[in-house]
Amino acid sequence: MFFERVAVIGVGLIGGSFALALKAAKRCGHVVGAGRSAANLQLALERGAIDSIESDVAAAVRGADLVLVATPVAQFSGVMLSMEKALKPGAIVTDAGSTKRDVVAAARAALGAKIAQFVPAHPIAGAEQSGAAAANPELFRGRRLVLTPLQENKKHDIEAIASLWTALGARVSRMTPEEHDDVFAAVSHLPHLLAFALVSDLSARANAAKLFGYAAGGFRDFTRIASSHPEMWRDICVANRDRLLHELHLFENKLKTIGTLLEAGDAASLEKLFAEARAARERWLSGEYE
Amino acid sequence: MFFERVAVIGVGLIGGSFALALKAAKRCGHVVGAGRSAANLQLALERGAIDSIESDVAAAVRGADLVLVATPVAQFSGVMLSMEKALKPGAIVTDAGSTKRDVVAAARAALGAKIAQFVPAHPIAGAEQSGAAAANPELFRGRRLVLTPLQENKKHDIEAIASLWTALGARVSRMTPEEHDDVFAAVSHLPHLLAFALVSDLSARANAAKLFGYAAGGFRDFTRIASSHPEMWRDICVANRDRLLHELHLFENKLKTIGTLLEAGDAASLEKLFAEARAARERWLSGEYE
Repeated sequence: MFFERVAVIGVGLIGGSFALALKAAKRCGHVVGAGRSAANLQLALERGAIDSIESDVAAAVRGADLVLVATPVAQFSGVMLSMEKALKPGAIVTDAGSTKRDVVAAARAALGAKIAQFVPAHPIAGAEQSGAAAANPELFRGRRLVLTPLQENKKHDIEAIASLWTALGARVSRMTPEEHDDVFAAVSHLPHLLAFALVSDLSARANAAKLFGYAAGGFRDFTRIASSHPEMWRDICVANRDRLLHELHLFENKLKTIGTLLEAGDAASLEKLFAEARAARERWLSGEYE
Repeated sequence: MFFERVAVIGVGLIGGSFALALKAAKRCGHVVGAGRSAANLQLALERGAIDSIESDVAAAVRGADLVLVATPVAQFSGVMLSMEKALKPGAIVTDAGSTKRDVVAAARAALGAKIAQFVPAHPIAGAEQSGAAAANPELFRGRRLVLTPLQENKKHDIEAIASLWTALGARVSRMTPEEHDDVFAAVSHLPHLLAFALVSDLSARANAAKLFGYAAGGFRDFTRIASSHPEMWRDICVANRDRLLHELHLFENKLKTIGTLLEAGDAASLEKLFAEARAARERWLSGEYE
């Protein structure tokens, strides 16, 4: 499927990469970008991700055949409200939001009868870089794309979005919004929170300079995601806070168990736990869970 | 300084890399290896890390001018006891143990009057790979080497070990054993424990396959250290458990604070915490704490 006119709302890492990838795959004509930062939009224009800039969402969406919303999730409500009147019949709206229940609720409230036009999706292709400067047409190759279709969606629209992401190299699968938010609370949102928590804790100490001075490769990788975009992660944590709190409590219980093993000097149980974790991770790396 | 005969006890990633690096720097003559795994020693021999194999520690240490103990730290007591009678006057014993208070205590108890010959050290060059197969003569280049010298050490011996590691490309600094164990509980031992904990927690769930199936790059880096050697990390956790428990409790308090912010939906405080963490990590990456 070819989209004559595409609107990208939020031309950051994901929106910019999507636009570059669409063009590389020759799946679109004109791409118009809208967003909060004029400097970032200008950069996206210079990099060839977008062909023109509109100052507001309605103007960008007017006449578009495909709309991608790729802003932090707390902005979805406003973005959807702004586009509702401008959205042309037959146009498909999709998104790249990292949470899905809130995004779907915001779309329902804002789009009303046009909700069938919104096919929610989440490309699993984050990075700690952000902005159009980091956009890369190959970002989605080999990565997962999770569709969380609505009952109201037309089969044809769902398949058009699935086939588009497949053309960009993504591996498309489907979940309900609820299942999506459960899964990503565990494998993405909680790890981000833990990485932010550790760096925040160490950086507030009197001997922070010494501590960071001796932090090495293990720490660097463990905390890479603590360099992620604060606003984006603020929005994700707030949007998915019930599931994230659930995961946080499970993890706190796990730490209590481990603390008890440590206090008891239970070397055998600690080694067993470490060995099981390593084995599970090796199974994962070997592709057993693909 | 040139060492005619070097004994490496435990020819794994660190011991094997040390031997390869010493040879590449032309700082040694014959290297003899000892360890628990005949297959691993044979591999170290084939890779040219060691020139001969001895079946026990005393035989390896006899006649050596330099001894490196690079086993998991719980073995130090036995290794030091085995070498005490065989250690020749003037020989220097050093180590690569990831904890230092326990290693020093084990050496004092085992070596008695020969304790002055032991110059404790810790190369900060771990990796999730282990064994002689992973050994690499460039492993220590640009990495830190922490010396925790003893009052009894001769200045000449401390300097000989410092200069040796400098020749292998390491950046040498000094701490007390207590300070060492404090610092590494925070920046190394706790992150390893958290990574093991998360993978262990997820892998025990009924939907583990689905969860791992959607885990992506952030999860991969966050959990890389959960592929570390279980026995080595069992020993580190037990040896440094008082400091590690202290760090674990600080982290649990931090998670409680964050949980409270989440429950309250305090978006501004969450964003501030994330932004401060990101800024601290960027300062670290920029080399501000080197």
